[in-house]
Amino acid sequence: MNYRFEKDHVVTIKDFTVDEMESIFELADEMIPIAEGEKKDDDLYGKLLTTLFYEPSTRTRLSFEGAMKRLGGRCIGFAKPGTSSAKKGETLADTIRVAAGYADVIVLRHHHEGAARLASKFSDVPVINAGDGANQHPTQTFLDLYTIQKTCGEIDNLKIGFIGDLRYSRTIHSLAEALSLFDLHKMYFISPEALKAPEYLLEELKEHEVQYHQFDKPDAILSELDVLYCTRIQEERFADRLEFEQVKSCYRIKKKLLEKCGAKESLKIMHPLPRVDELDTDIDSSQHAVYFQQAKNGVPVRQALLAMVLDKNFS
Amino acid sequence: MNYRFEKDHVVTIKDFTVDEMESIFELADEMIPIAEGEKKDDDLYGKLLTTLFYEPSTRTRLSFEGAMKRLGGRCIGFAKPGTSSAKKGETLADTIRVAAGYADVIVLRHHHEGAARLASKFSDVPVINAGDGANQHPTQTFLDLYTIQKTCGEIDNLKIGFIGDLRYSRTIHSLAEALSLFDLHKMYFISPEALKAPEYLLEELKEHEVQYHQFDKPDAILSELDVLYCTRIQEERFADRLEFEQVKSCYRIKKKLLEKCGAKESLKIMHPLPRVDELDTDIDSSQHAVYFQQAKNGVPVRQALLAMVLDKNFS
Amino acid sequence: MNYRFEKDHVVTIKDFTVDEMESIFELADEMIPIAEGEKKDDDLYGKLLTTLFYEPSTRTRLSFEGAMKRLGGRCIGFAKPGTSSAKKGETLADTIRVAAGYADVIVLRHHHEGAARLASKFSDVPVINAGDGANQHPTQTFLDLYTIQKTCGEIDNLKIGFIGDLRYSRTIHSLAEALSLFDLHKMYFISPEALKAPEYLLEELKEHEVQYHQFDKPDAILSELDVLYCTRIQEERFADRLEFEQVKSCYRIKKKLLEKCGAKESLKIMHPLPRVDELDTDIDSSQHAVYFQQAKNGVPVRQALLAMVLDKNFS
Repeated sequence: MNYRFEKDHVVTIKDFTVDEMESIFELADEMIPIAEGEKKDDDLYGKLLTTLFYEPSTRTRLSFEGAMKRLGGRCIGFAKPGTSSAKKGETLADTIRVAAGYADVIVLRHHHEGAARLASKFSDVPVINAGDGANQHPTQTFLDLYTIQKTCGEIDNLKIGFIGDLRYSRTIHSLAEALSLFDLHKMYFISPEALKAPEYLLEELKEHEVQYHQFDKPDAILSELDVLYCTRIQEERFADRLEFEQVKSCYRIKKKLLEKCGAKESLKIMHPLPRVDELDTDIDSSQHAVYFQQAKNGVPVRQALLAMVLDKNFS
Repeated sequence: MNYRFEKDHVVTIKDFTVDEMESIFELADEMIPIAEGEKKDDDLYGKLLTTLFYEPSTRTRLSFEGAMKRLGGRCIGFAKPGTSSAKKGETLADTIRVAAGYADVIVLRHHHEGAARLASKFSDVPVINAGDGANQHPTQTFLDLYTIQKTCGEIDNLKIGFIGDLRYSRTIHSLAEALSLFDLHKMYFISPEALKAPEYLLEELKEHEVQYHQFDKPDAILSELDVLYCTRIQEERFADRLEFEQVKSCYRIKKKLLEKCGAKESLKIMHPLPRVDELDTDIDSSQHAVYFQQAKNGVPVRQALLAMVLDKNFS
Repeated sequence: MNYRFEKDHVVTIKDFTVDEMESIFELADEMIPIAEGEKKDDDLYGKLLTTLFYEPSTRTRLSFEGAMKRLGGRCIGFAKPGTSSAKKGETLADTIRVAAGYADVIVLRHHHEGAARLASKFSDVPVINAGDGANQHPTQTFLDLYTIQKTCGEIDNLKIGFIGDLRYSRTIHSLAEALSLFDLHKMYFISPEALKAPEYLLEELKEHEVQYHQFDKPDAILSELDVLYCTRIQEERFADRLEFEQVKSCYRIKKKLLEKCGAKESLKIMHPLPRVDELDTDIDSSQHAVYFQQAKNGVPVRQALLAMVLDKNFS
């Protein structure tokens, strides 16, 4: 396919239009047989990716490396800060310039907000943001959107619920923002008072004329939803352990709850993983579970993005 | 060659018959020029292996990765638990399902007994056990058997001695069990009282009508042996440091001891490595030393197993 | 090209003549399009490199791995001692023999002086020294020399200054020794009293009839130099923090200082990186800065060395 657009870097999902996202998804579709090892490919043979992971993130790192390698490319990099020159006091800008001298594309995971943007300024080669602190993790958002589109047919007109820690979840903020660009029907935010979606996000949704509703329990709204996106509620957000335990049990998604609330048969349940208690394993074998597929979709989506920034023509 | 059998996973050596093992060894023979870098091969081009090492094991990990890469395949994975999602509380079952979504085969090293069996239940792709706690390490057993066969001509009719910590050594339990399936002549277990081979193992040998004898020093039996398999005696097994020091010096294999006891010229000395004091470096240059060859054999043997589970026809 | 010489190992720069070094540089020139990902190459397809890094060194490790992979080869290894068998008490000699059984070339980084020489004695395959304690780091010296030759046209007749910690810098000792083999015009050593170049080095330069001068500040000599090679001055070298702060500000290279001292327009400033304060970022955008290029040159130079020891004919 010919890209209808060009990007030098993948820093934030906000740099992409709906058309551009859909173009990525089309390319991801083409990547699936390669991602699954059914079709050999060497379009990126000779190309080199550097993974600079200043904080560990197995899932993200493995899927990027797998994506690159299935396309014939190679990877170098580090998985933890302890192995890097950062220890010796090197600035991120310097590390990026050196890494850009070795490889054709940099995948950066960093604990500081804005790290990827900074890196893109100092790099001669494309930078893909694999998470910068509480800020952005655009490839996660791409794979979330792609999963919704693949499993629901299209993104428009869906009713999508978000449950859990809506205040601190980078994943949910970013996905909600991206969804607001589509003709989405409605969004539902389900969380305890202390973990409500932040005001800035709600303001942004209003600007995009997205209708949203807030709930403090899933029970009243579960039957309406096409998609339920879960995230973990972390104990450290609560001053009181007892309060945490109460909240946890209300927000735990399990088969019984779905039945009790009359969830649609077609309801898709998503989760960025890893999960702990918030999503019961009794959902795993149900038709609702799409979270392992969602993780797997990380590979073709990242292949599409790698191919795009490395300017390969996959027509 | 065409496999005369099929296996989805390699969890324990007990899942294999003698015929199946010999079939693996034949394939390993064919792999040798590839394992040594003398013959290029790309039969596994496009295939992806994930190494999930919850505890470090350099030797095992490197030989698996080398095996895969010499066949044209690629590897992703982690080498230490600190870099994984396990820290965030993810279950092994979840990690396996995600990894199975990324790659074509999983090589798992885990500190819990039974981890590989569990993994094989949750994985859509083959799982190879690279050691699960005190339980099984089947690829080590395969390479041990292969080394015996290669260096002695055949496994049947040999007199094989095991020396060192026979109580806790997973390597020795597993190898003795596997050998009991062959028409082995005799086994000799040489260890201090406190580190004798466990009863269950001896029972199992009786069931297979293997003749065995137990000794508390190597001196009386060394001259009889075709193979002597050494393992390390660890200080932490002894309450008393003095006792440990005494034992250690009795069980140390060195040139002088071999000469004194009249070891056969053809005696093969094996060791799973790493060694510390139990095997003197003065053996290294002798015709008895096969332990470095043994380590090296890990590559073609693992290539044969990888090829088998990835269902490639190496005829 | 056909090598006019053969080396089994790369342990120290002292094993190479000027002719041999120049032969490496010619080959490095040919490697550049491959190192930059512009030309596909698979001359080392099927070959396997083991990186044994007993201490972390991101830059060196990534550039070796990138070099190998751009040539079609593969890598296995470890990046930190914690993942190795060294923890279990294995000797370096044993680890080397095992690694030599898996791969075609070993790249070793070790904290002990002489480790690489020892390794070369026990290895059946070539060993490349990637730094052994305070002793040698020959591939760094090769890339430094190559950078001087590339950016200045030739090494002969240059005036080269070294600034910073000249007492403890392995990089500078090794480079100065290597330069002494060329028809270099003059060397200038600029350092605080406590960090002067060691006597043995100065003796060696005298033997090679190199003229050298020592300075305690850059001001008096900066205008003469064709190349200024900077290194970091570490606080731990000083008993007194105040003294360190004074020294630091005198030895900090920045635009203003270059202007004040009348540095040549053609002055090349080098640094092995990572840098901290000793080299101001205001130099980065000037024509003087060659340090990022220098780091990048590590790839083609290491490709040339890998090709040489793996005996590939890149004619």
